[in-house]
Amino acid sequence: MEKKIKVFAPATVANVGPGFDIFGLALEGIGDELEVSLRDDSQIKILPIEGYEDLPTDPSLNVAGVAIQSMLDELDSQQGFEIVIKKRVMPGSGLGSSASSSAAAVYAANELLGRPFSKKELVPFAMEGEKATSGKAHADNVTPSLLGGFTLVRSYTPLDVVSIPFPAELYVAVVHPQIEVKTSDSKRILKREVALDMAISQWGNVAGLVTGLACGDFDLIGRSLEDRIVEPIRSVLIPGYEDAKQHALASGALGCSISGSGPSIFALTEGKAMAEKVAQAFDKYYTDLGIEHKVYISGINAEGAKTINKLTEKV
Amino acid sequence: MEKKIKVFAPATVANVGPGFDIFGLALEGIGDELEVSLRDDSQIKILPIEGYEDLPTDPSLNVAGVAIQSMLDELDSQQGFEIVIKKRVMPGSGLGSSASSSAAAVYAANELLGRPFSKKELVPFAMEGEKATSGKAHADNVTPSLLGGFTLVRSYTPLDVVSIPFPAELYVAVVHPQIEVKTSDSKRILKREVALDMAISQWGNVAGLVTGLACGDFDLIGRSLEDRIVEPIRSVLIPGYEDAKQHALASGALGCSISGSGPSIFALTEGKAMAEKVAQAFDKYYTDLGIEHKVYISGINAEGAKTINKLTEKV
Repeated sequence: MEKKIKVFAPATVANVGPGFDIFGLALEGIGDELEVSLRDDSQIKILPIEGYEDLPTDPSLNVAGVAIQSMLDELDSQQGFEIVIKKRVMPGSGLGSSASSSAAAVYAANELLGRPFSKKELVPFAMEGEKATSGKAHADNVTPSLLGGFTLVRSYTPLDVVSIPFPAELYVAVVHPQIEVKTSDSKRILKREVALDMAISQWGNVAGLVTGLACGDFDLIGRSLEDRIVEPIRSVLIPGYEDAKQHALASGALGCSISGSGPSIFALTEGKAMAEKVAQAFDKYYTDLGIEHKVYISGINAEGAKTINKLTEKV
Repeated sequence: MEKKIKVFAPATVANVGPGFDIFGLALEGIGDELEVSLRDDSQIKILPIEGYEDLPTDPSLNVAGVAIQSMLDELDSQQGFEIVIKKRVMPGSGLGSSASSSAAAVYAANELLGRPFSKKELVPFAMEGEKATSGKAHADNVTPSLLGGFTLVRSYTPLDVVSIPFPAELYVAVVHPQIEVKTSDSKRILKREVALDMAISQWGNVAGLVTGLACGDFDLIGRSLEDRIVEPIRSVLIPGYEDAKQHALASGALGCSISGSGPSIFALTEGKAMAEKVAQAFDKYYTDLGIEHKVYISGINAEGAKTINKLTEKV
């Protein structure tokens, strides 16, 4: 049994156009790294987080602590852990920052405990981490962060998460304009009722997107990446959103929408070269606008949470 | 060039659970047969329809006439046709009766005119037939009747129809309790607004159904065949609906819902044997209830509208 493990769980794009609260995809390269070790006592200890000293280290408030605790409760275990969080996904970016920490934490603890759960079975524990930060146990970011790929949360009661096949040449370009949009604010402005004809249009696009992904039909993926319900409302919170989207489309993106609750914007492309072109367009646009930003390009991360290395010292 | 052709266009199940107004599938064996011949003048003549003498023969009122006329308008053609309609799909059954006639009519005319259009290009003309009968140019029945298979109407503006892959072992059991539910009545009782959380649940199921179909995951198809928005409202118009559904599920159906606007009820199954078992359960239930009914079992008809035979006399 390992005593210490270093793990990675990717940043994620939730909603992905028409799939509000159901779709998510995992990014490559960007994600949180956690070093987790078994303690000889029952304490969960979270070390101060470098660069994010305002994030809580109290395990009952920190998403990683809450997520691991819910897993320990299920196992009826008193095992203690020490957790070093290297935060690489900026909180409030719309790229699943808290989900990345939650997913990494339960993945690491599960490995150290001899893997009592499958990755899919870890989703509910990671969701508890999400609940600690947003008040609701969302699964749309933690699912792709754990499982990788393009995922669907079909249902919450009972929880039913599904992996959707996707073409290998699907790439993502992301821009994170560094303004703050709190998920709770962003949720509040949504209407509780939608017109039936808008809902029908939305599930038409949901079906088109899944068909496009499963059949590798990039043109259909692009036509279906349309969100007529949430995007028009949330996009007003993101400076330059409409122009940035038009630049992405003019640069060859299949489609473009808001990542999670924003402010990050993502575009899907066929192939890496096109993603680079779109990222350049995002970069130039926000540079000209004078808004600090980061851009990323990424394939779809098929692996999800993973072990970087382990210390194989016997305990 | 043929002068006369005999064609078949299948009956269809629209909506298919969560896909209200977007999904449809084509049945085998059941459908309308049309004999269509070229006339030497510009008249569209529809002969009295055996068994359905109350259906209009005026080509501006009959769905077949309206559909062919819209095609001729697009071609700027004055060609006349004579049409014999052998109606095998009962009007008001919820199995796409008017769509079957409309699809067969435009398919036949297109063949006789040397195929100026692809099958997909025929959809808008067949939709005009639907408009003549229901007031709205629906595509969810005419699309599978023309193209066959399991289809998606992703969007109406612009029209975007898509074929969804499906597993060969997918079967359908249908019961048509012979009571009348008019589509216009059935539409009227739907609410114009839906709660956002219900809409989210619906598009989760839509995504699950497409994923299940594309991956041949029958269990996922069954879990996703849930309609929380339309079925609870429309099912009250169908005597015995809830019990019939429970009997289907107890007999091994993957899922069960209303075909189109009803009153027909369909169930999906894995394999033909299971479809036969479910059809028997439907039959027994409605026999015991004393309601006249018909049952059908069918695979998914992958071909759609087709030529039965042609008279190859030169014109």
